[in-house]
Amino acid sequence: MDLASIVGILLGTALVIMGMLLEGDITMYFQLNSIFIVAGGTMGGVVLAYSFEHLKNALEALKIAFTDSDDDAGDIISILVSFAEKARREGLLALEDEASELDDDFLQKGIQLVVDGTDPQLVRNILETELDFLEERHSLSRGVFEKGAELSPAFGMIGTLIGLIGMLAQLDDPDAIGPGMATALITTLYGALMANLIFSPIAEKLKVKSQGEILAKEVMIEGILSIQAGENPRIVEEKLKAFLAPTTRNNFDEEGSEGRAVERDVAG
Amino acid sequence: MDLASIVGILLGTALVIMGMLLEGDITMYFQLNSIFIVAGGTMGGVVLAYSFEHLKNALEALKIAFTDSDDDAGDIISILVSFAEKARREGLLALEDEASELDDDFLQKGIQLVVDGTDPQLVRNILETELDFLEERHSLSRGVFEKGAELSPAFGMIGTLIGLIGMLAQLDDPDAIGPGMATALITTLYGALMANLIFSPIAEKLKVKSQGEILAKEVMIEGILSIQAGENPRIVEEKLKAFLAPTTRNNFDEEGSEGRAVERDVAG
Amino acid sequence: MDLASIVGILLGTALVIMGMLLEGDITMYFQLNSIFIVAGGTMGGVVLAYSFEHLKNALEALKIAFTDSDDDAGDIISILVSFAEKARREGLLALEDEASELDDDFLQKGIQLVVDGTDPQLVRNILETELDFLEERHSLSRGVFEKGAELSPAFGMIGTLIGLIGMLAQLDDPDAIGPGMATALITTLYGALMANLIFSPIAEKLKVKSQGEILAKEVMIEGILSIQAGENPRIVEEKLKAFLAPTTRNNFDEEGSEGRAVERDVAG
Amino acid sequence: MDLASIVGILLGTALVIMGMLLEGDITMYFQLNSIFIVAGGTMGGVVLAYSFEHLKNALEALKIAFTDSDDDAGDIISILVSFAEKARREGLLALEDEASELDDDFLQKGIQLVVDGTDPQLVRNILETELDFLEERHSLSRGVFEKGAELSPAFGMIGTLIGLIGMLAQLDDPDAIGPGMATALITTLYGALMANLIFSPIAEKLKVKSQGEILAKEVMIEGILSIQAGENPRIVEEKLKAFLAPTTRNNFDEEGSEGRAVERDVAG
Amino acid sequence: MDLASIVGILLGTALVIMGMLLEGDITMYFQLNSIFIVAGGTMGGVVLAYSFEHLKNALEALKIAFTDSDDDAGDIISILVSFAEKARREGLLALEDEASELDDDFLQKGIQLVVDGTDPQLVRNILETELDFLEERHSLSRGVFEKGAELSPAFGMIGTLIGLIGMLAQLDDPDAIGPGMATALITTLYGALMANLIFSPIAEKLKVKSQGEILAKEVMIEGILSIQAGENPRIVEEKLKAFLAPTTRNNFDEEGSEGRAVERDVAG
Repeated sequence: MDLASIVGILLGTALVIMGMLLEGDITMYFQLNSIFIVAGGTMGGVVLAYSFEHLKNALEALKIAFTDSDDDAGDIISILVSFAEKARREGLLALEDEASELDDDFLQKGIQLVVDGTDPQLVRNILETELDFLEERHSLSRGVFEKGAELSPAFGMIGTLIGLIGMLAQLDDPDAIGPGMATALITTLYGALMANLIFSPIAEKLKVKSQGEILAKEVMIEGILSIQAGENPRIVEEKLKAFLAPTTRNNFDEEGSEGRAVERDVAG
Repeated sequence: MDLASIVGILLGTALVIMGMLLEGDITMYFQLNSIFIVAGGTMGGVVLAYSFEHLKNALEALKIAFTDSDDDAGDIISILVSFAEKARREGLLALEDEASELDDDFLQKGIQLVVDGTDPQLVRNILETELDFLEERHSLSRGVFEKGAELSPAFGMIGTLIGLIGMLAQLDDPDAIGPGMATALITTLYGALMANLIFSPIAEKLKVKSQGEILAKEVMIEGILSIQAGENPRIVEEKLKAFLAPTTRNNFDEEGSEGRAVERDVAG
Repeated sequence: MDLASIVGILLGTALVIMGMLLEGDITMYFQLNSIFIVAGGTMGGVVLAYSFEHLKNALEALKIAFTDSDDDAGDIISILVSFAEKARREGLLALEDEASELDDDFLQKGIQLVVDGTDPQLVRNILETELDFLEERHSLSRGVFEKGAELSPAFGMIGTLIGLIGMLAQLDDPDAIGPGMATALITTLYGALMANLIFSPIAEKLKVKSQGEILAKEVMIEGILSIQAGENPRIVEEKLKAFLAPTTRNNFDEEGSEGRAVERDVAG
Repeated sequence: MDLASIVGILLGTALVIMGMLLEGDITMYFQLNSIFIVAGGTMGGVVLAYSFEHLKNALEALKIAFTDSDDDAGDIISILVSFAEKARREGLLALEDEASELDDDFLQKGIQLVVDGTDPQLVRNILETELDFLEERHSLSRGVFEKGAELSPAFGMIGTLIGLIGMLAQLDDPDAIGPGMATALITTLYGALMANLIFSPIAEKLKVKSQGEILAKEVMIEGILSIQAGENPRIVEEKLKAFLAPTTRNNFDEEGSEGRAVERDVAG
Repeated sequence: MDLASIVGILLGTALVIMGMLLEGDITMYFQLNSIFIVAGGTMGGVVLAYSFEHLKNALEALKIAFTDSDDDAGDIISILVSFAEKARREGLLALEDEASELDDDFLQKGIQLVVDGTDPQLVRNILETELDFLEERHSLSRGVFEKGAELSPAFGMIGTLIGLIGMLAQLDDPDAIGPGMATALITTLYGALMANLIFSPIAEKLKVKSQGEILAKEVMIEGILSIQAGENPRIVEEKLKAFLAPTTRNNFDEEGSEGRAVERDVAG
């Protein structure tokens, strides 16, 4: 569970409901017709703009937005440095067994390519192409939420216009203008809530998580190529740590100090 | 038929009409004058901004938005891998007949260039130039819809201003202000519907489809150049699969497993 | 005459006027004061933002927006292929006379550089620098219209605020609020019309035409360098056709088939 | 004096004042409180966003927006071509005296580096680094005005909200709503005027002038490196003229024809 | 303390409070409910969009926005030039002690890599990777404030809609509409103030400071690599000064003149 996502959406919802309760009767903010226009119109626009497959991917991306990502760059560096040591001691072929046990498909594929003796230029080429298209797929899934954030206030306004026009055209009793206006404005409220409480923050979360995953994969590519080039494990570690924030890096140094002591014995 | 496009536009329209019906008489939302101002003004602006040829291309792009694309990267990879095998067994010239049967002009041209013995650098140059200008043409056709999405709410507001000014300037009876306002607001409603139910989602759909087509063509370029370089079909497959999503890739592996078994016999 | 530009601006204007006529008396939409504020304020902002020279260039760009461009990439390719043939038969110097008869300064200059025996790297360097700065000049002229499209609705709102404040501050008779409001809103209407009927579409048209001209010049650069490199005219044609849309390309093939038949005799 | 800047700001101001005079009493548009909120709030936001040093630079940039720039690319090319001739006749060292008399620090420094026998790659490196950071400094100074254009309408709205809330909360006499509204709207008017009459056009002017200065410096870099490489002055001229607009170029040819006649005698 | 940040936020706040005081009773602008909706909703959206770690980083970035940065490029150049001199006289190893006393981790790490005899290409690679990810982390922290600037006016509007709907739906007494409206508008006011007085200027400040830090680090990378290449200290200084504004550069020349006199003796 991504705690921040849960806390964020609950906090926002709670405060909006609190605001409504303070106005008196919360039921006056509930209107089925408005929900249909905003949610249905927005969904119509999004379905027209994308394919059902993109929508399925976007639903999976939604799961990602609410679960913790396991792209800890620190862990990946530890694994890569230990692979670099093993490759130096026992040769590249020794990595085959370890690769098959990896969770991450991308890292596994990269190591397998190296074990297979693929040309380094081709390894980089294949992995970077995969990364480019991963980025493109992420951006498409995010696009569904961005389009939702763009269309939902528009359909909120459309619903309010429909309500206003209906009320004004049939206006007999000037006293009815207040409640009629209130009813019409509810659709605008729904559109604004959908965009700002749900779609826009989730699109941003997906962007941030995508950057994290891409960073992790960039670390993997650099590490895999360094291992293939037979670089000194200490150099590999130094290179990969440049991808980390200084604070993360310090934690990593403490944890990793024993590992490196071992490595120095071996590499020395 | 692109089912998502049809479903999307029908869903949105249905919900908006439902919203109108719930207000009472749906005829009060129909106003010919408003349609003329919004549709005509938007069309005027779009025609001024583009040429008739661009508009014709945009209409064809509209067809594309509502039909299924046949750019299945998986199929293209299968074809390219089988070509790579044939070229290895029988030489590049053997591809001439197969090329002539291809549906895709781009792929056909690329294979023909290879068969003609064109310099690899020139093959890449020609195909990438074509791809760049394909992208530019797509972006021009999409531009027509993006301009429509920008201009239609503006002409909706212009129509409403014209109505409001006319009503207010001649205001004798304060009771008439309600119905007059309703009439004026209908043009704003039309502008918002045109932009958010039609132009904006279609522009997005064209963008997504354009990305799919460009991806397919990038796969073709890589494949054609690999075939020309006489690369091992297994390597060709590995390289091209990097362009696919992991899920698609797995499907492809299952389907393609026999093909590869054959290929290994041959290439081994 | 660029027919689309003329038709577009007339269509938009006609529909807006029709909308006004349907409200009754069209004279109530005419207000000199409002024209002064919107047109004058916008012009003031644009003059402050640019120099008089840029404004003069923008006026010339306006002429371009309403006249047909003669950058037919097909014609240019025909000329370049015929030059490539002549250069192969009679040497580069033979192009001097033909170059002097060319309408296009850019193409003429490029051929002249080749005839003068300039280093190919320098030819590319000079022509690409010219193209970069052509693009920058186009973008400056377009900027005048984009700034106009940004400032005119703002000055429309400023005029309406001036009118509203004046009316409200002196409000004695509540019945006067309707006509006063109508008068104030006319300035907003003018600002919206200037931006959406004139400035914004013209800026887009200039952008589209600029892309066309740049494409034509890119074709020229490729062609000139191919001629200088003494490439086979058939290869030159193949390379340059990659810049065209497939449909245009087919037309070109039909027209050009005789030329190529001749060329093959020569080159063969 | 940059005449266009002066004319533009006077024209805009005059028409706005004219608009106010036509409403009757111009003093009703003057309200000290509103000036404080818009000007003070905008200044507060800008000071928070930048440092005092950036503000000082922005004030100097303001001077630049209202004075003529002396970056005439034509003059610079004349100087560089004459330097190229002198360097060919008398050697690079002969440029030392002339360089010391140059107004432009950038050109002077470049020539001095060449006279000092600095490595050409390092000369390019140093001059391009300077140009990059010149561009960054320009963009920071411009940013102050762009932030002003963004914040001033927002503080106009904030002032109007403060006025509206104050008026509505204390509303006893419905007749007072008109004048109260007028007073509240004045702050919105001030914000719109500050953004559209001052900040936005000045930011654009600075951008245009910055482009002009950067173009001039790019001409200098190309010229300096050509001189260092000992290129033929005619080639130098040809290369640098590619940076000019065709019209400017023609003027330059006429003026420069004598100079070139001399040069040909020498270079021939 | 970053004086401009403090002065800016105090100035803006003071003027807004002054504006409220002039309307009469300042307590009518204070409403707890509105604060909860705007601040809570915005915080909800930001927490959903980012992780708690990013929020912690954003709070630290807030500290940076209000404290003086110590990235004086002039000081850094002085240090690097003195290191270049020392390295020339006593060899690269002599820098080890001095490096260990440096405050800046980035510079220290770079010098240490050089002292360790790391390959120059790898040194550049490591330092530039660090710089890229520093830039990415800065942009994430800034994103928290940019998201706040985007969401707070939206939640201001949401709060106002909740208030308006509640008031209009229960409207009995038309006289109550004024005060009810005033109450509803307060939430819009809070949203506008949060965005324009706090979030937007702070995001800009962080951007400006980030650019300053990145400039300083770019100077360090150039300097470190020049020292490793054993370049003449005078050349190092000349290269690095290209990163400075001309005015800063002149100050630097005066301060640094003695240093350079010494250096010339040594290097000569």
